[in-house]
Amino acid sequence: MHKQYFATRKTVRNFDHSKPLSESQITDLLQLAMQAPNTGNIQLYSVIVTTDPERIAALAPAHFSQPASTGAQAMLTFCVDMHRYAKWCRVNHTEPGLDNLQGFIWATMDAAIFAQQFVTLAELDGLGTCYLGTTTYNPQKIADLLKLPKGVVPVITVAVGHPAGSAPISERLPLSAIMHPEEYHSPTDDEIREIFREKESLESNRSFVAENGKENLAQVFAEVRYPKALSEQFSKIYADFIAANGIEL
Amino acid sequence: MHKQYFATRKTVRNFDHSKPLSESQITDLLQLAMQAPNTGNIQLYSVIVTTDPERIAALAPAHFSQPASTGAQAMLTFCVDMHRYAKWCRVNHTEPGLDNLQGFIWATMDAAIFAQQFVTLAELDGLGTCYLGTTTYNPQKIADLLKLPKGVVPVITVAVGHPAGSAPISERLPLSAIMHPEEYHSPTDDEIREIFREKESLESNRSFVAENGKENLAQVFAEVRYPKALSEQFSKIYADFIAANGIEL
Repeated sequence: MHKQYFATRKTVRNFDHSKPLSESQITDLLQLAMQAPNTGNIQLYSVIVTTDPERIAALAPAHFSQPASTGAQAMLTFCVDMHRYAKWCRVNHTEPGLDNLQGFIWATMDAAIFAQQFVTLAELDGLGTCYLGTTTYNPQKIADLLKLPKGVVPVITVAVGHPAGSAPISERLPLSAIMHPEEYHSPTDDEIREIFREKESLESNRSFVAENGKENLAQVFAEVRYPKALSEQFSKIYADFIAANGIEL
Repeated sequence: MHKQYFATRKTVRNFDHSKPLSESQITDLLQLAMQAPNTGNIQLYSVIVTTDPERIAALAPAHFSQPASTGAQAMLTFCVDMHRYAKWCRVNHTEPGLDNLQGFIWATMDAAIFAQQFVTLAELDGLGTCYLGTTTYNPQKIADLLKLPKGVVPVITVAVGHPAGSAPISERLPLSAIMHPEEYHSPTDDEIREIFREKESLESNRSFVAENGKENLAQVFAEVRYPKALSEQFSKIYADFIAANGIEL
């Protein structure tokens, strides 16, 4: 029965405010989610839970006011947290040594694992969730609003609420493109075309191509959604923010 | 009922080889896990599934031959994959633009989310799993064994098998230390001592302190397990490997 849920889970971007979302429900789900694995059991993460409507409205512009942010009933900002560990070390007369690439990558993975465990639990409880991929675009604005101290870097935001309306199941590439038995298989040009064929043929994706005046879906991704110059600009903003937090990548 | 599982889940490091692990079970679980969310639905990840005992034996030293690696019935190496996306772009006469910090962090989070969804599904199926935090230590050795092309960076390994014996539930910090309502609360020195008090008082952790001749648990973490010099050395190895794969952090 649980497999039916996993096979059909979908991202929810519209929420029903006529049903209240209780803070204790979020707390209970986070308590369970925290039992997810983490590297070395150091727990280099924190989560800031925003439920006050005024604070959600203030946070939404940092996520370009996408509907899942302006309409969220709660926003959970998962962060890499070097601050708590560093303080624990200093109180105990020693120096932390994880303010580097290794520590940052571990903490990012652990924050993602914690977030995903929360998402699974929330969805099994009937709630809807949406990851906001915009968290790394405006880290300083988010840090200011959430009063993050030095060493705490926002990496993931999850919008939560009661689902309103229905949402589509998102397509995925064939598993054979993602899963490699024993050794990585590098696809030929023809195999690449075959891997992306079904995705490219979806009506919604064909509309994106037409609307944007492009020849194909790859050009929509590479030139409209995630163009190199913009991605490099946001990479620099995030790199500078991480460095200003005392973490050396 | 599912909440009972989430509350009591535990990492399994010893596996029962008298029960065979079928490749089709792994494939079915990965198919379900792939429905987990990912950034922009670009799916910048791959997973290499190692089930051949000789290949597992060859891979284990890259994980310092920890028991969960030498004894695994399958090892799943989850990777950041810029190779497939880049090839798709080039076949379609455009240039990929995500070989930078933004793309790498998104792909790392998405690989972690995919891995955690697999872990949850495997555990619900009665299998045992263990994340190997050593994946970022020896990326070149892992890449050579798994024949990873340029642009594919291993980030997470999960050892899988039928559980042998029982495993303890791992302690966690109090949720109040991790979860911050509305704004981040920076703990005082006294609050830090209180947050870590229960963890420090566990018999197993007190033994670590005694065995290592240290004054307290923080010193064991900062000076024995994750000393700064070693963490910086491994950060440099990983950074160089990422750069050699054409990804600029």
